[in-house]
Amino acid sequence: MGNWQEKVAQKKRTTFEKIPKAWVQDQILTDFRDRPYSQVSTYLDEVLPESENEITKLTACQIATKVARRELTSSDVCYAFCHRAALAHQILNCCVEIFFESALERAKELDRILEQTGEVVGPLHGVPISLKDQVNLPGIETTIGYVSYIGEKSQKKSLLAKALEEKGAIFYVKTAVPTAMLASETVSNVHGITLNAVNIEFSSGGSSGGEGALIGARGSPLGVGTDIGGSIRIPAAFQGLYGLRPSNGRIPYMDVTNSYAGQEIIQSVIGPLSASLEDLQLFTKTVVDSHTWDEDPKVVPIPWRDQSSLRQRKLRIGLMLWDKLVMPHPPVIRALKETCQSLLKEGHEIVEWDFPLQKELLETADQVYGADFYQEVEETLKLSGEPILEYMNLARKSCLNGRADPQPLSIAESWELVKKKNFFREQFFKKWNASAALTQEGEPIDAIICPVWPSAAFGANEVKFGVENYTVPFNMLDCASVVLPVTYVDKAIDLPDATYQPANELDAMQFGYYSAEKFDKMPICIQVVCRRLEEEKVLTVASIIQDACRSFEEHTNN
Amino acid sequence: MGNWQEKVAQKKRTTFEKIPKAWVQDQILTDFRDRPYSQVSTYLDEVLPESENEITKLTACQIATKVARRELTSSDVCYAFCHRAALAHQILNCCVEIFFESALERAKELDRILEQTGEVVGPLHGVPISLKDQVNLPGIETTIGYVSYIGEKSQKKSLLAKALEEKGAIFYVKTAVPTAMLASETVSNVHGITLNAVNIEFSSGGSSGGEGALIGARGSPLGVGTDIGGSIRIPAAFQGLYGLRPSNGRIPYMDVTNSYAGQEIIQSVIGPLSASLEDLQLFTKTVVDSHTWDEDPKVVPIPWRDQSSLRQRKLRIGLMLWDKLVMPHPPVIRALKETCQSLLKEGHEIVEWDFPLQKELLETADQVYGADFYQEVEETLKLSGEPILEYMNLARKSCLNGRADPQPLSIAESWELVKKKNFFREQFFKKWNASAALTQEGEPIDAIICPVWPSAAFGANEVKFGVENYTVPFNMLDCASVVLPVTYVDKAIDLPDATYQPANELDAMQFGYYSAEKFDKMPICIQVVCRRLEEEKVLTVASIIQDACRSFEEHTNN
Repeated sequence: MGNWQEKVAQKKRTTFEKIPKAWVQDQILTDFRDRPYSQVSTYLDEVLPESENEITKLTACQIATKVARRELTSSDVCYAFCHRAALAHQILNCCVEIFFESALERAKELDRILEQTGEVVGPLHGVPISLKDQVNLPGIETTIGYVSYIGEKSQKKSLLAKALEEKGAIFYVKTAVPTAMLASETVSNVHGITLNAVNIEFSSGGSSGGEGALIGARGSPLGVGTDIGGSIRIPAAFQGLYGLRPSNGRIPYMDVTNSYAGQEIIQSVIGPLSASLEDLQLFTKTVVDSHTWDEDPKVVPIPWRDQSSLRQRKLRIGLMLWDKLVMPHPPVIRALKETCQSLLKEGHEIVEWDFPLQKELLETADQVYGADFYQEVEETLKLSGEPILEYMNLARKSCLNGRADPQPLSIAESWELVKKKNFFREQFFKKWNASAALTQEGEPIDAIICPVWPSAAFGANEVKFGVENYTVPFNMLDCASVVLPVTYVDKAIDLPDATYQPANELDAMQFGYYSAEKFDKMPICIQVVCRRLEEEKVLTVASIIQDACRSFEEHTNN
Repeated sequence: MGNWQEKVAQKKRTTFEKIPKAWVQDQILTDFRDRPYSQVSTYLDEVLPESENEITKLTACQIATKVARRELTSSDVCYAFCHRAALAHQILNCCVEIFFESALERAKELDRILEQTGEVVGPLHGVPISLKDQVNLPGIETTIGYVSYIGEKSQKKSLLAKALEEKGAIFYVKTAVPTAMLASETVSNVHGITLNAVNIEFSSGGSSGGEGALIGARGSPLGVGTDIGGSIRIPAAFQGLYGLRPSNGRIPYMDVTNSYAGQEIIQSVIGPLSASLEDLQLFTKTVVDSHTWDEDPKVVPIPWRDQSSLRQRKLRIGLMLWDKLVMPHPPVIRALKETCQSLLKEGHEIVEWDFPLQKELLETADQVYGADFYQEVEETLKLSGEPILEYMNLARKSCLNGRADPQPLSIAESWELVKKKNFFREQFFKKWNASAALTQEGEPIDAIICPVWPSAAFGANEVKFGVENYTVPFNMLDCASVVLPVTYVDKAIDLPDATYQPANELDAMQFGYYSAEKFDKMPICIQVVCRRLEEEKVLTVASIIQDACRSFEEHTNN
């Protein structure tokens, strides 16, 4: 066994030792597999005490309210989520850093403060928040999937963690990422693969797959992910959760570890995932209200702007059923169509949306992501001797689009990519404004709805069927975007379209990947997209859409 | 005579022909030189009709008010500025595109609208605004100092021009820039050198030197410049004017021609120059109120935030007399010290400011500016065969700092520069926040005051004495910054400090460049600096400082 394997084995042992002995269950995966259902959450509900389930089924908003009203203690909440996270991890392999002890101490301290002062420290008082491994906490490692980073304890605390903590959040776990966060699945030589909480035959998605899996199993009410090509939205979609990709500069990234930190053509952004839409707003508003722009020069000083007046009028929604490149699977199309029906029923307006530069935009993004032909990754892998993973070879292939020579771009070539990005963004705004010609009131659309992902998910170890056509464009365009679960695959109705003629090779691959049986019961999310820095608006629009869908369902069921 | 010289001669003829014959004065420069004073404005006041001088001495705010009240017509205002600009140009060589005819037509149209509707089209109704050559107007060339760009008429209109025009501005002239805007003087093979309006022995500064000269001669009440290393602030300072360097993303740069458009490590910004501080606010507020963020994806959606409440309390000002690298000349030091006296007298607080990373920051900026070793410039020069200018060789020398090989940076090296930039900005914010420990009320400083330039100016063709130590840092740090004229060189009191021991070679050079005689009567400006995106605040603080200085002067004179 080489040196890197030893480091990994040691790391796994150390992490595992952080789980209290009473919570270690060697046979948990076998036990779970024996059950007649696929949801990890259902299993955990069976094996965990009802008193804990009563807590872990709550949203972050509900927890905050109940703790503030002293209907729950921070300690009980923290204990319940630690316990559930410990079990979820043993099934899904979703945690990389575990620090329950300090979390429980912190919870006790918060209880003491509330008791003594009668006041909560902030709107997140007592809310456990899980953190993608990139977020730094002093004394805790940040390996981001690199073997060579094992053993280096962080000195600093990410500004976001500081802001959340000041408002009462409790950190108890850091979650798995793929090496360097550059994949839509979550696998690395450090921690192996993270499985899907809804059905472990599937990938948890990536790169915030640890968050997706943990929240999907309700081992966390609210988590922090990052997104440079879909990394918040993909795990949210794969697990039927809510996720917000904020625009660049809205939520502080300062002192968060990243790969390619100097690459600012398309920047990674940081944002929340949760099982509740309200929690995304709680998170975002709380952080914006923290005025972190006084400390992080990349944060734009835009205070929270209430958008509830949107509820007083009819919305104008642009529908992009597909991008003319890769047709989403039948349940995704159904999800969008049903959403439109619900919206129309409520009096909202739907117009067609398509953006003709979709292909150029994807190709340019591939070149940005692979601008150095992944040399930084390769060099960091070499430090430990760990081997390269499959996704990296796929990525290398992608970024060669239109380039003969597998070399890092020159600086002049990189500037051409910047110009293209700016061109795309300008054209997108033009198109958006031009949508005024399509709507009844002559005003531009409020938001776009479109797929998040062409399939419900892809199988564990099937990243080759991953197609980022519906996430990457909104990184290139820096749009505020929400992932919203709307339905489940139903093998009885989501039949393959036998007559479909694929538009290209990728489309044919994705088309061939569909099977109603394989994806049955998997959740389907849609994406709600607003313009740059319209976080408040996209959250409000998503909420209006959700209400419309729910009221449509109720109506239909009655 | 080679091909490029012919193109230039033709271009000069064409520009000149745009001046009405009656306004052409072949002997104007000789005539001016014969007079016993140095200010071009004084000369023009003598040779132009009093009725026109009554108009051209007005600020943009005053013009807008008088036009709105129908005390003046847009046509009369436009005529007066066109006339004065034509003469100023014949002395200073400050204009590259002249279009008086369309301007006068536009003025007539504005008069007609006001007469017919009784309403102004916006807060700039009838205000002539001069534009740095980079700004595009359909049918007009944008050469940015390149011979090879001669003859190419622009198709598009810059978004800023559109916004200003919609609010009533009249465009009548585009002003000179150095080749590619990469110099602190204004000289190119296309139009030669632009001289200083206060004293033609001096450079007008750069790269918005055409604006500086034209406004300095009162041939324009308000102009648009750009700034990537001081290009708004230097001409403002050299001519004793006001200038605002807005933060990146506050004023729209969309469809403005630029060199190195893809270089976004340090971005060029666009902003106003004027002979009045109130005009900077009129300009900035008007543009911000135009909500151009709906069209330009780079503009941040921050509405105008009134800061007049600052007038109700004492300010906390950080004073940076010098950067420990290059000692400003005696009148600059005096200007800052007198400003502090005035502020203290009014009850404001002064604390010391220094930023220890000044040197690293300047070296990094040099590497950013010369990231491709000026290959883009060289290639564009080659298209016409025009020779390289002195400033470019100086720039090449600068950007070699710490680099053995005169080659474009690799993409990995460019990412290191981005990381350094972000590190500087974070450290700057930390330092800024830490200033709370120095102030009486335990709050951070409101603004910094410091030199704009170590000398009053440099001589025409003396760009080698140009030292950008006090402008470039605030580009690297993306600070909102105002140039504020506060005094004049007085050879009787601004004596060289014979005891001064220069800190380094550059400092010795700048020290040796001082002569009270040479700079006598030149204006001295200081720089007022706030944090990123604090345009409203920096304008208000500058206004409070100006009031304090004026009231101090009045008090002293009584």
